[in-house]
Amino acid sequence: MSYASQLLDAYPRTFNVDARVLAATIDALNDCAQACTANADDDLSESNVADLVKCIRLCLDCADICTTTAGVISRQTEYDANVTKPMLEACMAACKSSGDECERHAMMHAHCGVCAQACRRCEQACRELMMAMK
Amino acid sequence: MSYASQLLDAYPRTFNVDARVLAATIDALNDCAQACTANADDDLSESNVADLVKCIRLCLDCADICTTTAGVISRQTEYDANVTKPMLEACMAACKSSGDECERHAMMHAHCGVCAQACRRCEQACRELMMAMK
Amino acid sequence: MSYASQLLDAYPRTFNVDARVLAATIDALNDCAQACTANADDDLSESNVADLVKCIRLCLDCADICTTTAGVISRQTEYDANVTKPMLEACMAACKSSGDECERHAMMHAHCGVCAQACRRCEQACRELMMAMK
Amino acid sequence: MSYASQLLDAYPRTFNVDARVLAATIDALNDCAQACTANADDDLSESNVADLVKCIRLCLDCADICTTTAGVISRQTEYDANVTKPMLEACMAACKSSGDECERHAMMHAHCGVCAQACRRCEQACRELMMAMK
Repeated sequence: MSYASQLLDAYPRTFNVDARVLAATIDALNDCAQACTANADDDLSESNVADLVKCIRLCLDCADICTTTAGVISRQTEYDANVTKPMLEACMAACKSSGDECERHAMMHAHCGVCAQACRRCEQACRELMMAMK
Repeated sequence: MSYASQLLDAYPRTFNVDARVLAATIDALNDCAQACTANADDDLSESNVADLVKCIRLCLDCADICTTTAGVISRQTEYDANVTKPMLEACMAACKSSGDECERHAMMHAHCGVCAQACRRCEQACRELMMAMK
Repeated sequence: MSYASQLLDAYPRTFNVDARVLAATIDALNDCAQACTANADDDLSESNVADLVKCIRLCLDCADICTTTAGVISRQTEYDANVTKPMLEACMAACKSSGDECERHAMMHAHCGVCAQACRRCEQACRELMMAMK
Repeated sequence: MSYASQLLDAYPRTFNVDARVLAATIDALNDCAQACTANADDDLSESNVADLVKCIRLCLDCADICTTTAGVISRQTEYDANVTKPMLEACMAACKSSGDECERHAMMHAHCGVCAQACRRCEQACRELMMAMK
């Protein structure tokens, strides 16, 4: 069981959303942040780094946005849908852009393929949380 | 001249937006992130901390979101409007929520009044950047 | 297999350290960051929040420091021991302080117990990476 | 007056250190984080990006470490020297590495020169805070 799940289990109040969906989204966000941070670095080590500038840039954005989104949705105290929903929208957009760009390099660079997968999963997890929050 | 301005002046390519508006927004975002981080801590030091839980929570969100937004808009290489615009929307929403809550405590706690001002300025700066990006 | 492991497997150059130890440390850091972020929020939801101010403060520090350390050690390109080693030292110190404080509240609050465990594991993982880097 | 100063002025308890030194260090840290984030992006836009990989990598580290250090020292509630001091040490090390590397490219790239200056100032500010904390 992930620490996200364990901590949600121990949360002292009630949730505004299914805790399993919430935990799965937090895990997907943290996975994606890690994948994007590492992939930007893998790109920097490639001999064709000049061709990977867009990929690096979008992965840096996506890593920061996923980490921030994980923090926002981990905070259940005084939940504010006015902040959470647009943050999830921004995160889905970042995962989409980063996933699309990584996918373009997946045949040549295995690390971009792995990162694309993390971005797709995270985008989907954010979408499921949005629907569960309705 | 802020470091945001100095670095934008030295940027090797052309911008998709007025550099002065961009620099002013970056400065407002970094100011707001600092104000929110410090205000959450000031709240933790107050004897009525239990009344400030919502303020702390929203300031933590706003600090993370402003720092991330500053990073996203500071990266001009391979600019992606699909990421930048929803991120600015999320940031305006966070500044609005945090600014509203801080304002409610401004009479009792001067630090909340200062933080509310930083949030209002940042929300306005993000809005101006959005319009300049059109 | 975690995304940290998958991305390290796909790294285009050779490592300066055992990749399994490195991946395990990155996972422990991300786990601890998540635990501390969620625990600070759990503390904010407790009726005795005023007794938990030190715990909240140390968890906020520990979350930020673990996220930053995970980023630093995930970047293997142009590895710089002069930065990595003191960063791991700072992270072990943060995990120690946060783990000690969380442990003091573990009997009363289960979430503090879970967080203490994440801090202990992370401190130990950083120590093992330090030894492997020798 | 910076927001760091304004918020410290409104802090409800007493400090363990001269508030002006503290505010100056927070400002230098936020400046350096911004300079490093922007400089890594400027590097990515250069035609000789392959020669700037080390500079990008160290600037990414330094940006994250400065932002985290600014957060740690901005939190005065339940101040813990065991965390603050090694964090300042790690930050000085990051500023030194990043400043040295940026300086090597300052003749060719003005943005690296500006960033080197921000790193030197930040390293010095952290040192002054360390001495003031004694």
